[in-house]
Amino acid sequence: MKKRKPTIKDIARKLDISVSTVSRAIRGAEDINPVTKRKVLELAEKIGYKKSVLAAGLASKKSFLIGVIIPELTVPFFGTAILGIEEFLKPLGYDLIILHSDENAQNESDCIDLLIDRQVDGILISLSMNTTNDDHLRRAMEEEIPLVVFDRILPNSELPIPRVIVDDFDAGFQATQHLINKGYKRVAFITGPVDMYISQKRQEGYVRAMERNGRPTSAEYIVPATDLRRSVGTALDKLMVLKDKPDAIIAFNDPIAFKVISLLHKRGVKIPTQIAVMGISGDAMGELFYPSLTTINQPAKEMGFVAANLLIDRVTAMKKAKDEGKLFIPMSILKTLPIELIEREST
Amino acid sequence: MKKRKPTIKDIARKLDISVSTVSRAIRGAEDINPVTKRKVLELAEKIGYKKSVLAAGLASKKSFLIGVIIPELTVPFFGTAILGIEEFLKPLGYDLIILHSDENAQNESDCIDLLIDRQVDGILISLSMNTTNDDHLRRAMEEEIPLVVFDRILPNSELPIPRVIVDDFDAGFQATQHLINKGYKRVAFITGPVDMYISQKRQEGYVRAMERNGRPTSAEYIVPATDLRRSVGTALDKLMVLKDKPDAIIAFNDPIAFKVISLLHKRGVKIPTQIAVMGISGDAMGELFYPSLTTINQPAKEMGFVAANLLIDRVTAMKKAKDEGKLFIPMSILKTLPIELIEREST
Repeated sequence: MKKRKPTIKDIARKLDISVSTVSRAIRGAEDINPVTKRKVLELAEKIGYKKSVLAAGLASKKSFLIGVIIPELTVPFFGTAILGIEEFLKPLGYDLIILHSDENAQNESDCIDLLIDRQVDGILISLSMNTTNDDHLRRAMEEEIPLVVFDRILPNSELPIPRVIVDDFDAGFQATQHLINKGYKRVAFITGPVDMYISQKRQEGYVRAMERNGRPTSAEYIVPATDLRRSVGTALDKLMVLKDKPDAIIAFNDPIAFKVISLLHKRGVKIPTQIAVMGISGDAMGELFYPSLTTINQPAKEMGFVAANLLIDRVTAMKKAKDEGKLFIPMSILKTLPIELIEREST
Repeated sequence: MKKRKPTIKDIARKLDISVSTVSRAIRGAEDINPVTKRKVLELAEKIGYKKSVLAAGLASKKSFLIGVIIPELTVPFFGTAILGIEEFLKPLGYDLIILHSDENAQNESDCIDLLIDRQVDGILISLSMNTTNDDHLRRAMEEEIPLVVFDRILPNSELPIPRVIVDDFDAGFQATQHLINKGYKRVAFITGPVDMYISQKRQEGYVRAMERNGRPTSAEYIVPATDLRRSVGTALDKLMVLKDKPDAIIAFNDPIAFKVISLLHKRGVKIPTQIAVMGISGDAMGELFYPSLTTINQPAKEMGFVAANLLIDRVTAMKKAKDEGKLFIPMSILKTLPIELIEREST
């Protein structure tokens, strides 16, 4: 094993000056004797001192770490959003600490505390399906850590936080309109949990499209997949026992649509001739399903990119206010990205 | 906005002692005047000083960050492995910096440099399919950062690094034996890139199983999906123009098997009656495919857990050697986890 790495302390000791003087010399501070500064830099080079990012972070009060909290690690939508986040942040020298809440509000709150403790420069978060209050987001703000919420937001939060979403109302509307245009008569909707904002908006879009086309929306055609994962079978069962079975089903998201397709196959139901199925997400996997899945594409990567951009805007604005001795006034921003229909074989 | 957080400097200024003395008092160093120490701790509590993790990391030379490098962010196998890594490391107070190489050796090398720069306490890495040398792993070791390689290893590397893999030979062997037991006569194998170690091992298992059962392995039944993503169609085309078409196909991994199933549907081929398909991975999605995918399950989560465990063992061993003034001798460890057959409808 090679010998110990030279540190800032070694330089201080050899020159008989304080560690803080060495540190200021190395990070290029102005308020330092130029002769001392030259001596420090010369010795640093001579003994092979490498500037520590950790130490640099401490000195400049920046960690160059951004925390990302997503609900699930194995859902492709969030993986793709992270690719967009990276695309924006990497060239700026930021690294990501990626955490997941496992769709649990308490875990999510713990994640925030962990990131506060890590002194990240900012947090990008997509909320768990059970998150109903913003105390944890407030805590981060109180610690002067800028936040941006993407995709899964708290609609009633009064915290002035930038948010990026897709037009979920339009997603529900366009999905429904597509099925009506294709001639389906009885369009059902498997929603997410009732408290979930994006699920509510998609459902509103569905209801509006039905009304616009003169279809009465029947409550029995709207069934929730309450936990997004294990309850799809129950939701589908409720639709399949109806006297007037649906001839088309919109799933709240693509993973639910995949499950519906699988369950319909097991029941021997032909897709789309007996029942059409469509999703909302735009997961790449949808193309490989049989039949391939018609879906509403959400621009996941773009969402990540835009969210990261908004976060750095805020980081910059906060720093500027501080440098100018002004109070930083956080603004509430809501960016809505457009969605698009991808028509495949399942409708 | 609340007033500035008190820092270690404020304490030093008020007590007219050096920052380094304050720091040592706060982190409980022994070589300090007990009266000074008490003064520091009392003042720290009075002004509400909170110990910074960043500073604590700097003082103890530990960042409590572990770097994780995976080839792809959107492949479920790696997401699941990370769940296992987290399960082991979280209770110990470590956080993860998750990076991906996008299956590119140069990116992977850059990821290592980034993690060296971040002074992570250790690195868990699954190599990109193009990685052919271990210079970057050597660099990390030279910086005294322990590494563990999981799933995708460099078989010829002489670096003494712990590695965790599954028994890929057995995966190929058992997949082939399963198909032969089910009565399939012409079993083909779509491999990964030829240089990829785990692909070679799976292929060896396939060849051995064929031989054991008295089947001559024909070279034309072994075709590579050279880039894992876009070349599956070409590989399948090669099999479908053979005079003796295969009646069963083993795909190098589940994502390739999903693509094969999709392409066979498009060709109107019935699965498994005309051609059986099986994968190797155990992705949860396989259960939802039509027909559902027979596969060889790799214990992804367990692999992550075991890899993280080996890493912390090494971190501890290195620290112990250092504390005792001994030279740390790194050992080359290879842990092989067992695989298991999951039989579903596609075979």
